[in-house]
Amino acid sequence: MSKRISLALVGIGKIARDQHIPSIAGGEDFELAAAVSRHGKIDGVENFEDFDAFLKARPDVQAVSLCTPPEVRFDMARKAIEARRDVLLEKPPATTLGEAEALAAMASAAGVTLFATWHSRFALGVEPARQWLAGKAIRSVSIVWKEDVRRWHPGQAWIWEAGGFGVFDPGINALSILTAIVPGAIVVHQAALSFPSNRQQPIAASLSMASAAGSPISVELDWRQEGPQTWDITVETDGGELRLSKGGAELYIDGALASSGPDREYPGIYDRFAALVRARQGDADFQPLRLVADAFLRGSRQDVDAFHD
Amino acid sequence: MSKRISLALVGIGKIARDQHIPSIAGGEDFELAAAVSRHGKIDGVENFEDFDAFLKARPDVQAVSLCTPPEVRFDMARKAIEARRDVLLEKPPATTLGEAEALAAMASAAGVTLFATWHSRFALGVEPARQWLAGKAIRSVSIVWKEDVRRWHPGQAWIWEAGGFGVFDPGINALSILTAIVPGAIVVHQAALSFPSNRQQPIAASLSMASAAGSPISVELDWRQEGPQTWDITVETDGGELRLSKGGAELYIDGALASSGPDREYPGIYDRFAALVRARQGDADFQPLRLVADAFLRGSRQDVDAFHD
Repeated sequence: MSKRISLALVGIGKIARDQHIPSIAGGEDFELAAAVSRHGKIDGVENFEDFDAFLKARPDVQAVSLCTPPEVRFDMARKAIEARRDVLLEKPPATTLGEAEALAAMASAAGVTLFATWHSRFALGVEPARQWLAGKAIRSVSIVWKEDVRRWHPGQAWIWEAGGFGVFDPGINALSILTAIVPGAIVVHQAALSFPSNRQQPIAASLSMASAAGSPISVELDWRQEGPQTWDITVETDGGELRLSKGGAELYIDGALASSGPDREYPGIYDRFAALVRARQGDADFQPLRLVADAFLRGSRQDVDAFHD
Repeated sequence: MSKRISLALVGIGKIARDQHIPSIAGGEDFELAAAVSRHGKIDGVENFEDFDAFLKARPDVQAVSLCTPPEVRFDMARKAIEARRDVLLEKPPATTLGEAEALAAMASAAGVTLFATWHSRFALGVEPARQWLAGKAIRSVSIVWKEDVRRWHPGQAWIWEAGGFGVFDPGINALSILTAIVPGAIVVHQAALSFPSNRQQPIAASLSMASAAGSPISVELDWRQEGPQTWDITVETDGGELRLSKGGAELYIDGALASSGPDREYPGIYDRFAALVRARQGDADFQPLRLVADAFLRGSRQDVDAFHD
C-alpha cells in the first residue's frame, strides 16, 4: 500500500459534504489533513477561513481539492500551483476557457498535477458506452437533460450570476459524457438560449451540433422540469441504439439494460486523482467548457418568464 | 519572380471591393482567376454563384480567399480544404472556436495552408509597437474602441444576428492587436455586455482582463460613437507610454509620433498569404476569438435602448 496523500478540501458546501468527504473517507489514497472555507467546517481536521493562510501554515499538505463556486477557483488554483501543490478542480474547471488554459499551462510549467474533473464521466455506464461505440458508425445523438433547478440547486444564487453558467451547470455534465464517448472534436452550429427576465444566466438551451464525422447532435437542456427528471443520451448507430440514462448510471443497448450498479462517480474521481498524482501527470480536457463558450458566443437569446426560487 | 498563385475571391461585398480586389491587383503574388458570390460579380474573370460548382469547374485555382459573412464560411472552408485548396479566412475566422479549431486540424491533416487573418495586425504601428514593448514591464493596458455603427456597417443585418458578434466585430480587431503586442495568454476576468432590446448582439461592451504577467487590461467597446471616432490602445510601461492610434496606423511613444504612413493592412495580408502558401505553412491564431467567446461566457448582460439603422 502506498503512503496516503495529504489533502485539503477547499469550499465546504453541499457538494463537499455530499460527495467529496465520503469519497475521501471511503478510499485509501488520501488523508484529509485540512479544510478551508469561509462558512463550513470539518470536524477532526485543522480548519482555515483563508486560503493564503492555509498555504502558508500547511506546507506539508501536498494536494488541494477545490470545491468552491467556479468564480473564485482560478485565483486559488493559481496560488496552489505556485505553492507546488497538486490540484483537483470541481467542474466546471473555470469561468472562462482562458482561465482554464492558463491553469493547465502553469501546472505543466510547475510540474504539478492538475486534474480538471468531470464527475459524470465516472458514471457507471460511460466507459462501457465508449467501448461499445468504438468502431460503430454514429448516425445521430440526442441529449435530453431536464431537471428541476429548485430541487437540485436550492438557494445557489451564484449559479444565476455572470460566470455561473445557468442551465449549463448541469448541461456541461451531459457534454462531458458526450465528448468522452463520441470520437473527435464536436462543433456547435446553432444555439438558442432562454433567459428569465430577472436572471443573468439561461434557464433552458437548445443546441444543434455535429460530430467530427458530421453526425447531427441535438441537445435539449431545461431547468423547469417538475415531476420525473430526465438525464438521457441516445446514440443511433449502424449497430443498434445505445442509451445512457439517469445521468450515465444506466446503459441500455437496443432497449435492454446492459450495465448498472451503485454510484461511484466521486470515488472514481479520487481513484484517478491518486493515480495522476503518483504518476506526476495531469488530466485537463476543456472540450465541454469550449462547447458551452461556443453556445454563448453563437447563441440567439430569448427572454422568458422571470424565475423565482 | 515566382509564378503567380491562382486565386478565387469568394463573397463579393464591401470588404472584397474596398480591400481585397485592390490588394490582389496591386501585388505580384496572385492572379485573380475567379469570383464566387450570390450577388456580386467581378468583371474580367469567371463568375460563379455556387461554391460547389466553382470547386468542380476550376480545379486549376489553387487558393481561395473567403470574404463572406462568417456564418457560411465554415462549410466553404471545409469544402475548400477537402478539395486541397489553400484558404485565406477574413476575420473573424469562424462563428465558434470549435469551428475554427476544426478547420485548423483539417488543414493540417490535408497539408494545405490555412491563414486566419487579422487585418489590424498589419496596421503600420503594430510591429514597431511589439518590438518596443519586448523586454519592458507592462503596468497596464487601456483599449478604447468607439465608432459609429451606422457609418461603418450600414445595412449589414448579419452583424446583429446570432454569430455576428455585434460590437465585437470591430472590437476583435483591437483584441487581435493586443494579443500580437502583449506577450503570453490573456484572461478575461469580467465583462459587461449591453444588448439593444431589439437586437441579438451587443452594441457596447466593457471588459476587465489581465495579461499573463498579471497587468490589468481594460477594454471599452462602443458602437454608438458619433462625431470623432476612437480606436486607441495605450500601454503604460516601466519605460514610458506607448499609444497605438487610428486602429494601429499611428504609433506614439510618450506622446510623440514614432511611426505612421499609408495604410497597407490588406496588401500586408496578401504578402503574408503568398509567403505561407509558398512555404506550405499555416497561420491560425484564435486567441482573439477565444477572448470574445470568454467575454460572452463570462459576461453580465444588460438591456439598453433599441437600435434602429
